[in-house]
Amino acid sequence: MNVFSKERLLKDVMQCSKIEGIDPLDVAERLSKMAAIGVTPEGGITRYPYTKEEREVKEVFRGWMESIGLEVHVDPIGNLFGRLIGENPELPVVMTGSHLDTVPNGGAFDGALGCLSSLMAIEAIIKQGLKPQRTIELAVFVDEEGARFKNGIFGSRAMMGEVTAEQLKNFSDADGITLEEAMKEQGYLPGQILLGKRRAEDIFAFLELHIEQGKILENEEKNIGIVNGIAGPSWRTFTFLGNTDHAGNTPMHMRKDTVTAAAEFILGVEKLPRTFSPTAVATVGRMNVFPNGTNIIAGKTEVVVDARDIHVDKRDELLEAITQLAHEIAQARELEVKVESGISIPPVMVPDSIQSMIARAAERHGLSTRTLPSGAGHDAMILGKYVPSGMIFVPSHKGKSHSPEEWTSLPDCVNGIVVMKEVLFELANQN
Amino acid sequence: MNVFSKERLLKDVMQCSKIEGIDPLDVAERLSKMAAIGVTPEGGITRYPYTKEEREVKEVFRGWMESIGLEVHVDPIGNLFGRLIGENPELPVVMTGSHLDTVPNGGAFDGALGCLSSLMAIEAIIKQGLKPQRTIELAVFVDEEGARFKNGIFGSRAMMGEVTAEQLKNFSDADGITLEEAMKEQGYLPGQILLGKRRAEDIFAFLELHIEQGKILENEEKNIGIVNGIAGPSWRTFTFLGNTDHAGNTPMHMRKDTVTAAAEFILGVEKLPRTFSPTAVATVGRMNVFPNGTNIIAGKTEVVVDARDIHVDKRDELLEAITQLAHEIAQARELEVKVESGISIPPVMVPDSIQSMIARAAERHGLSTRTLPSGAGHDAMILGKYVPSGMIFVPSHKGKSHSPEEWTSLPDCVNGIVVMKEVLFELANQN
Repeated sequence: MNVFSKERLLKDVMQCSKIEGIDPLDVAERLSKMAAIGVTPEGGITRYPYTKEEREVKEVFRGWMESIGLEVHVDPIGNLFGRLIGENPELPVVMTGSHLDTVPNGGAFDGALGCLSSLMAIEAIIKQGLKPQRTIELAVFVDEEGARFKNGIFGSRAMMGEVTAEQLKNFSDADGITLEEAMKEQGYLPGQILLGKRRAEDIFAFLELHIEQGKILENEEKNIGIVNGIAGPSWRTFTFLGNTDHAGNTPMHMRKDTVTAAAEFILGVEKLPRTFSPTAVATVGRMNVFPNGTNIIAGKTEVVVDARDIHVDKRDELLEAITQLAHEIAQARELEVKVESGISIPPVMVPDSIQSMIARAAERHGLSTRTLPSGAGHDAMILGKYVPSGMIFVPSHKGKSHSPEEWTSLPDCVNGIVVMKEVLFELANQN
Repeated sequence: MNVFSKERLLKDVMQCSKIEGIDPLDVAERLSKMAAIGVTPEGGITRYPYTKEEREVKEVFRGWMESIGLEVHVDPIGNLFGRLIGENPELPVVMTGSHLDTVPNGGAFDGALGCLSSLMAIEAIIKQGLKPQRTIELAVFVDEEGARFKNGIFGSRAMMGEVTAEQLKNFSDADGITLEEAMKEQGYLPGQILLGKRRAEDIFAFLELHIEQGKILENEEKNIGIVNGIAGPSWRTFTFLGNTDHAGNTPMHMRKDTVTAAAEFILGVEKLPRTFSPTAVATVGRMNVFPNGTNIIAGKTEVVVDARDIHVDKRDELLEAITQLAHEIAQARELEVKVESGISIPPVMVPDSIQSMIARAAERHGLSTRTLPSGAGHDAMILGKYVPSGMIFVPSHKGKSHSPEEWTSLPDCVNGIVVMKEVLFELANQN
């Protein structure tokens, strides 16, 4: 049974803002239609890129784009676009969108609500008879989650020219099928990937709506999150090396125990972010103890730190302090520590002008706002490297994300679409 | 190549104590002979119970027992015994011995040196023309390590009547062969297991020599360890339950992070033992983080604590304090913690009289001693529940144990045999 249910969404239909051109019933209907594709036995949704399920949801979505009169095209690797041609079609476009793939056993809102909000915002512009100067282009990017090929935010990176055809051979799924083969199987043309490349100067701005995937908006009872930056993650692995000894025959003071060293380190890591920046976070979500036996003092413990901030200098200072701490603890305990750097993605700042547009749009509709960073990566993080990009967050119930429990109420969905519509139209008329 | 080498042992032959009836060359020769049985590609030794290798090493050992004139018999499950009949054979016997099975890829000394020391101590008594009043009985217990059937200290438990024939069906090896089947395959009679039972009143005392498996004797440059008690382990599993959240989108103060809670707990566990007893230890060697993803705040972390002391009341107080700490941390962090008790083996105290005998014997031969607990379990831990039991430790180089690197120098082996001989003879003449 799918945890998502249309009935649950519709319970709050009476609380939805009433805006010309945005029908809450359509929102519920379309979300349900997408949520029914790729349902798992556990009640979630799995739609990996380049599969039957992903093709099906994109076919449905393409149908909606065509039905509201957008000019649709697909690039050589399966990114799907729909254009509302502006009054001045030669101007750089305002782009908006998200993705329709999911993590394994994911929820009904991550990505899907973003695509739907962009679609319904454009639909409202059309229905209200508004005439944007710039073309507004809806993008449905492939493989944002990276769940199948461990190579996420792929479609947007490809669109910005960051991926070559050659690289597609290097990523394989669990069955050994390469990204290139998976594309060909679905009739795409991986060899022509660069034909899909878009020039930054042809895009005026990018706007993405997404569920918060956190609890701030819900806890503070705010309608709309104004993202001020997308915190790029930086990962570092700390491997403490000591002695593997018998838990019974080694007195406490003669141990070279790496688990206790790791414990001291993790407690320190928890306290450091606040001393660098109010938006910084650092997490140990992954650690491995070797040999991991109850009666064996562990001679090796691996701790992976994920540090993020929207301010790259603060994040990197934080990581240096964390690294320093690891060395201090290792030295004091007469252990060794090996440090390896992992991914490090630069954060993206959202221009003040876009933040203000979102704030003003929300205010006009009586919606409360909260400025906050996005800790997770999104397609907007890639676009933001090249063009002014913004994000609108809507509340996530209990912060649940990448889980069948993911939930955003229908009024919150509608509020997001309203703000999206206002900002898209304003951007499309900017000089 | 075997990491053990006779040549390395013999390098120190000139430093060996010269005692009538104990030939250091025999020690080296016999240790080498046993070390050559069950050699692994990694240079260690694997001798699982009820296998060709274990049968072979026992055949060799039986030959030595017969060659010095012991009266040999095997019980229905394969425990091997050899008796030097005393002047008063109706008196309860003094028993001594250890085991010849090993862990996978283990070393040449664990168990084997104990059996050999008992054999050579008896041989020295015979060669010196001494006439003990009591019968001295050498025991080679089967399956002490529990490596094959996960059911260790088996032979000694069976001898004391703790195991029924029915229970032998409940333990299987990795290939699904039950303990009962493995015994039958080797020609033993599992159905008659209780015929091998010995009455506690027929055993006057038990004495086992073992390598320390720790670094205390080597670090303090002591020849002989006088074991004052065998610390029984008690295990408890603490499962912290919080919220699985996105590492990017959850500010530090809104987390219900179980890894940081576990870290605080582990640091506390490290500090507690010294406040209860100088011999107490507590170890976290096993912990598991769920889901163990770099960018996911872990909603569940499992920590297993192994607490030991030779004083059962102190050990149990320590475990209660550890449990209390877990609850306090969980409460302060607004998490839940689930506590499950695992194995809990009562410690065994060595009678002062046996400790003094070991001390005096060492002193007579100019050997330095150190009183210390045994943190690991041994056959003497089982015998100690029923009859006065003692243990002699000899130094382990770098504390290495259950590893091909296990090493005790030839002089240390000889010293152990000397003390074993003296104490066995004294016990055998006690009223």
